[in-house]
Amino acid sequence: MKLKKEQKLLFIGDSVTDCERLKPDGEGLFQALGNGYVSFVDAFLQSSYPALGIRVVNKGISGDTVRDLKARWQEDVMEQKPEWLVIMIGINDVWRQFDSPFISDHHVYIEEYQKTLDELVTQTKEIVGNIVLMTPYFIEPNSEDAMRAKMDAYGQVVSQVAKKHETMFIDTQQAFNKILENLYPATIAWDRVHPQCNRTYRAGKSIFK
Amino acid sequence: MKLKKEQKLLFIGDSVTDCERLKPDGEGLFQALGNGYVSFVDAFLQSSYPALGIRVVNKGISGDTVRDLKARWQEDVMEQKPEWLVIMIGINDVWRQFDSPFISDHHVYIEEYQKTLDELVTQTKEIVGNIVLMTPYFIEPNSEDAMRAKMDAYGQVVSQVAKKHETMFIDTQQAFNKILENLYPATIAWDRVHPQCNRTYRAGKSIFK
Amino acid sequence: MKLKKEQKLLFIGDSVTDCERLKPDGEGLFQALGNGYVSFVDAFLQSSYPALGIRVVNKGISGDTVRDLKARWQEDVMEQKPEWLVIMIGINDVWRQFDSPFISDHHVYIEEYQKTLDELVTQTKEIVGNIVLMTPYFIEPNSEDAMRAKMDAYGQVVSQVAKKHETMFIDTQQAFNKILENLYPATIAWDRVHPQCNRTYRAGKSIFK
Amino acid sequence: MKLKKEQKLLFIGDSVTDCERLKPDGEGLFQALGNGYVSFVDAFLQSSYPALGIRVVNKGISGDTVRDLKARWQEDVMEQKPEWLVIMIGINDVWRQFDSPFISDHHVYIEEYQKTLDELVTQTKEIVGNIVLMTPYFIEPNSEDAMRAKMDAYGQVVSQVAKKHETMFIDTQQAFNKILENLYPATIAWDRVHPQCNRTYRAGKSIFK
Amino acid sequence: MKLKKEQKLLFIGDSVTDCERLKPDGEGLFQALGNGYVSFVDAFLQSSYPALGIRVVNKGISGDTVRDLKARWQEDVMEQKPEWLVIMIGINDVWRQFDSPFISDHHVYIEEYQKTLDELVTQTKEIVGNIVLMTPYFIEPNSEDAMRAKMDAYGQVVSQVAKKHETMFIDTQQAFNKILENLYPATIAWDRVHPQCNRTYRAGKSIFK
Amino acid sequence: MKLKKEQKLLFIGDSVTDCERLKPDGEGLFQALGNGYVSFVDAFLQSSYPALGIRVVNKGISGDTVRDLKARWQEDVMEQKPEWLVIMIGINDVWRQFDSPFISDHHVYIEEYQKTLDELVTQTKEIVGNIVLMTPYFIEPNSEDAMRAKMDAYGQVVSQVAKKHETMFIDTQQAFNKILENLYPATIAWDRVHPQCNRTYRAGKSIFK
Amino acid sequence: MKLKKEQKLLFIGDSVTDCERLKPDGEGLFQALGNGYVSFVDAFLQSSYPALGIRVVNKGISGDTVRDLKARWQEDVMEQKPEWLVIMIGINDVWRQFDSPFISDHHVYIEEYQKTLDELVTQTKEIVGNIVLMTPYFIEPNSEDAMRAKMDAYGQVVSQVAKKHETMFIDTQQAFNKILENLYPATIAWDRVHPQCNRTYRAGKSIFK
Amino acid sequence: MKLKKEQKLLFIGDSVTDCERLKPDGEGLFQALGNGYVSFVDAFLQSSYPALGIRVVNKGISGDTVRDLKARWQEDVMEQKPEWLVIMIGINDVWRQFDSPFISDHHVYIEEYQKTLDELVTQTKEIVGNIVLMTPYFIEPNSEDAMRAKMDAYGQVVSQVAKKHETMFIDTQQAFNKILENLYPATIAWDRVHPQCNRTYRAGKSIFK
Repeated sequence: MKLKKEQKLLFIGDSVTDCERLKPDGEGLFQALGNGYVSFVDAFLQSSYPALGIRVVNKGISGDTVRDLKARWQEDVMEQKPEWLVIMIGINDVWRQFDSPFISDHHVYIEEYQKTLDELVTQTKEIVGNIVLMTPYFIEPNSEDAMRAKMDAYGQVVSQVAKKHETMFIDTQQAFNKILENLYPATIAWDRVHPQCNRTYRAGKSIFK
Repeated sequence: MKLKKEQKLLFIGDSVTDCERLKPDGEGLFQALGNGYVSFVDAFLQSSYPALGIRVVNKGISGDTVRDLKARWQEDVMEQKPEWLVIMIGINDVWRQFDSPFISDHHVYIEEYQKTLDELVTQTKEIVGNIVLMTPYFIEPNSEDAMRAKMDAYGQVVSQVAKKHETMFIDTQQAFNKILENLYPATIAWDRVHPQCNRTYRAGKSIFK
Repeated sequence: MKLKKEQKLLFIGDSVTDCERLKPDGEGLFQALGNGYVSFVDAFLQSSYPALGIRVVNKGISGDTVRDLKARWQEDVMEQKPEWLVIMIGINDVWRQFDSPFISDHHVYIEEYQKTLDELVTQTKEIVGNIVLMTPYFIEPNSEDAMRAKMDAYGQVVSQVAKKHETMFIDTQQAFNKILENLYPATIAWDRVHPQCNRTYRAGKSIFK
Repeated sequence: MKLKKEQKLLFIGDSVTDCERLKPDGEGLFQALGNGYVSFVDAFLQSSYPALGIRVVNKGISGDTVRDLKARWQEDVMEQKPEWLVIMIGINDVWRQFDSPFISDHHVYIEEYQKTLDELVTQTKEIVGNIVLMTPYFIEPNSEDAMRAKMDAYGQVVSQVAKKHETMFIDTQQAFNKILENLYPATIAWDRVHPQCNRTYRAGKSIFK
Repeated sequence: MKLKKEQKLLFIGDSVTDCERLKPDGEGLFQALGNGYVSFVDAFLQSSYPALGIRVVNKGISGDTVRDLKARWQEDVMEQKPEWLVIMIGINDVWRQFDSPFISDHHVYIEEYQKTLDELVTQTKEIVGNIVLMTPYFIEPNSEDAMRAKMDAYGQVVSQVAKKHETMFIDTQQAFNKILENLYPATIAWDRVHPQCNRTYRAGKSIFK
Repeated sequence: MKLKKEQKLLFIGDSVTDCERLKPDGEGLFQALGNGYVSFVDAFLQSSYPALGIRVVNKGISGDTVRDLKARWQEDVMEQKPEWLVIMIGINDVWRQFDSPFISDHHVYIEEYQKTLDELVTQTKEIVGNIVLMTPYFIEPNSEDAMRAKMDAYGQVVSQVAKKHETMFIDTQQAFNKILENLYPATIAWDRVHPQCNRTYRAGKSIFK
Repeated sequence: MKLKKEQKLLFIGDSVTDCERLKPDGEGLFQALGNGYVSFVDAFLQSSYPALGIRVVNKGISGDTVRDLKARWQEDVMEQKPEWLVIMIGINDVWRQFDSPFISDHHVYIEEYQKTLDELVTQTKEIVGNIVLMTPYFIEPNSEDAMRAKMDAYGQVVSQVAKKHETMFIDTQQAFNKILENLYPATIAWDRVHPQCNRTYRAGKSIFK
Repeated sequence: MKLKKEQKLLFIGDSVTDCERLKPDGEGLFQALGNGYVSFVDAFLQSSYPALGIRVVNKGISGDTVRDLKARWQEDVMEQKPEWLVIMIGINDVWRQFDSPFISDHHVYIEEYQKTLDELVTQTKEIVGNIVLMTPYFIEPNSEDAMRAKMDAYGQVVSQVAKKHETMFIDTQQAFNKILENLYPATIAWDRVHPQCNRTYRAGKSIFK
């Protein structure tokens, strides 16, 4: 366990992070952390390591791309001064290219993705001691599927940025791939993105093993 | 055009047919026909052949399998005495095997599907002059995908039943396959079943060509 | 087919165009295009010509007259830079003279209508390569009915503006007249304006024949 | 003034009578009488003849035809034992022939209309001292319009039944015709049936002149 | 009948005038005039004198006192430029003294009432040709009741202002007194202010006799 | 204090008792006792005599007359087997004669009121040790007001029944009369029946003095 | 009774004071005072001392700490100019330290609590003649419970501030302690803070004894 | 791991089990399993052991006591034929004795609790191979607190029944006690029963270790 007493652990990302969390705070009483993998992490921490007193904050916003994160980075990350920062972004950057192919303003292509993610990590790493980069994912077992292939490319970018800045790295796609050996995608998520029943929780747990 | 003056054209099926149609009537003023392909067919008929006076009735119910159709066949088809009957069923028969793999009571396997569909057509063909059988579909271009492969097998059953009883036959899967040569599935439907924006309408139109 | 690969096709008008489209964008996922004739056009294009990649945008607003279009022309048309522009306006310009006869501020008389429509087309035609002008309509077969007669006069204006600027022209009223030979107006629309069941779709389709 | 102290005055009919009245009672506190012409009659009576103590009851139901009235006549008229009975029925009998031309089960043709109305009056006249028959109407000035012409024929039936049984008779169509000399139908009602703003009240008042 | 062709008739006042009218316009389609006495006046005018083309506007706001009218007089009266203006105000000026006796900021005492009403009429009479002043009322037959007595005093002020400026004058209290000879207040209004069932309509009608 | 340890105290009556209590139980967690005088009594008992353990049950139903109490007496009183029973009924018996003067079926005249109340008390007094009869009331200071006078007559009946059966007796009207010496009725209740702000609580408290 | 004729009595605090009071006024018709102990005090005053004409104002806001009171003190207390001021604050100052132990920004520690409360009283006492300080409370009988012990310490602060400024003082915790001798906390409040059923009312009443 | 391929695992209990699960099925798509510890168990199983194909069913109902379980045991357990059955009941059996002390019908005392639980296990153990008994709990660290003490006694009963029938046994209270060494109860649950944020999940996980 690498977390230390009374540290702040901040998650930022898209709908997979958001899950109806309290806006704008992302922490507090009741369902402030939403009902997704962030609340799993919090439940795991508070019940397994109650003495640590970790402060979990959720800054996910549904539909966000890395371009949107950049726009709110100052307020939602820098001013929060977390000791730990978990970033999972990129699903919408890719998805819009496939569900809205003719609306190119909504697409974030891989160059912009790489450049922006790199900028955000560069800007943050002096201040935040511990950064965890998680790959985006697509719950599709066929690696030749066009969208899965592109998601893998974006995941590759995450891996490179993590290596360059020596941050922690979690291959979320890989975690789902394991499950997909036994379960068909529709068992997990009709849209191959939003798990029906909190089944992302494995990924979340991997952070602390 | 094979439809004759003042005939009743009845559609039965699942959510693809249903689309928020008026319950239980399935006809009448305003949105009684729902907002799916049945209303497209009606719009096409009333604007292109207004003199025909075709009475369109929608008896789709979301989530239905062929087992559910059998249970309501007497009331929803036989007592309606249509001259034309369009049947598109099977998506849920297959889907539940993939999204709820452990709840076998919700699965309708291919033997039951074939036997039931055959029974329904046998029971009806003397009374209804014109039967149109449409295959179920899955908006997935990879024909080796497990669910797509099973959907194809069910579609094969529809084709055989149509041939045996000499009904009309529409290969809905084939119609989507054409579109999938250019568009990724997510452009049409996030869940690969319910088109975002009435994009089933081609299938509907094929009936009357 | 005159549309070319990856062009943007923008529709502007009143409630017949609007039909609960997403505000303010008028494009995007799900029901962003509304449930009226614009979504029919989009469904037709994406299913018949999926390789073209046409970007359809809906900028209709319920209740608008040509005076309202002028007020939002810069933002909703000029800045959108479409290759194709379809304009159907005038129903409310006429209707208010008949349903609110004593509130003259809500009336747009024929001189203002002509002048404004001409201005808008003049201002746009250099930038937008293809303009389609559609007449307003009233689903009333009796051409001596006072409101039908005035709607015809406004339609005449549209025809003249189209001729002067050599734009494409669609006589929507004429399309409805054909249907009215067989159907009574109330079958199509209780208020003789808003079709019950997407029955404007013929008009929409005529654009691409 | 023909009404006598403490008599019960019952109105039966369709949506023009109903107007959101309290179901099933049709009398009582607050908006029990609805917001249509029945409440106008009541307001007129209570403010002009408060000493009379007339008990007004509204038994209108939206969408009803004379066939529906027959089905609830025992409960809604006979068991109520009113001294006065006002009947306005027939609009939906005719309208469904024009807005749903292909659904013949919803049509009440003129023979059934005449026979049923005659039966209801025959059955009631011994018990109810005073019957008022009002014609159905269509707010359309063109008497050659197909629906207006048929509504006139139904109004003719009402006139004959009134004469045969020597009941009171009110020509509602005629009352609207007067107004239509100056106002276009859409000023009164977009659908030419349901007045926007209680403008049926003249007809109601005619009962007591 | 003193109203002339195409004049604008504006009503201003409190909840008795307001009755859920459209905000802020107070005119237009559907229930724009609300469901109170203003809509009765409009219904009476449009059905009895359709050729006049009177434009009725409702500027009532629930809860208003004369102090509130003053604050919005420029916008809601002066800029509207009506030919006819009907003012009924004062019920809340008095009522708050009786239902909220300890909150003196909500009270408008008789000196302020008189001064303000006089100012408003003075300011308006050159511009608006025809002013009708209606007294406030309290549906209480006992003239020695404290609130009824005070309401009578405010009604007296209205009468004096009308006389001084030679405007038309309607004694609304007197109209209710007539009805109260036969009906107990609770029959008309549980709170002795808001008639249950449009029973103010007599008062409204008195304007045009 | 006459209440003994662990006794059940049941209140029955109309809307003054009901006040949104839990249906059908009338006891339990949260707002089960409603927000009227019954909850005041409970609050008083639990905070002043917590050791007594009194079980308070609310069986009021809005709009009830003594005729309605009779119909549910077996279930709502006899089967509950309370040690204490508080009855306050009669407001609606009287009010309907004044707010719905022409609907005589809704009136409960004084003979029926007296006979029914007497029956209910006779039937109950052997089983329930302690009965409290409270008079109905009308928050009107003028004792010559017609409805107040009739309410006083009904209160007189309650007094006589209490005397005959030697039950406890509370003159609720008298309690309000005291308050009305200083406050105008509208301060307490716009409709002179339902206190705005729990101001019945004095009456409730009187039971235990 | 120390209250004098026509004085204003203002309550400020957190959710125990607030109880769905009207925002922002905190006084007026209907439920303006909320449904908590402030409305009990008002009911008690208006029914027991109606001649006094006390104006009760509720300025409680759910969730407030003393830090929040300071931020709105000028507007909600100073500008209101009450003759009497009742302050009950501190529950949230303590509670957040126990329900959100890791979010220290939400904690108001005892030094800040003392300093701020002292400032507010100092600033106010010249202007407001009568200040009542009530302790915060926790409905927990075990005085060694960590949160109860801290609440007692905050209550001690209130007592000291009251003594220093010679204001009135109510020991709310003590009032609940009495009740807790007989009742388990869950009978009063599941969360040991918000009484289920107005059971704070004793505390309120103590002000005027 | 003791679970075998394709076994059915059924949970029964009160609100801690229920958590808005789908009624009456307790299994199926989307949120059918609710958002409590049952969905955690399912998420854990499907992501860690996807090849097992365990069918999880939730039959919890909020507010239930062991008496309520008995009433629905035949339908909700016996007819479901699960291979695994997890029972957590007793919180409400105890809680009602403390939050509703005067309503003894709602209490389930320890003799009835023991006898009923024993009956249910006896009746089931032949049919269900694996039974897991979990103790009820109260999130209160003070073991001398009256309700905590009684909950411990009920937990003792569970332990004895488990021993007698040789079922598996989980001491939920013990799991919470561990957490309470570091966290105050309010951090986990304001009402000391319903964890704010899925913090029961540890207990759930213990089943499979």
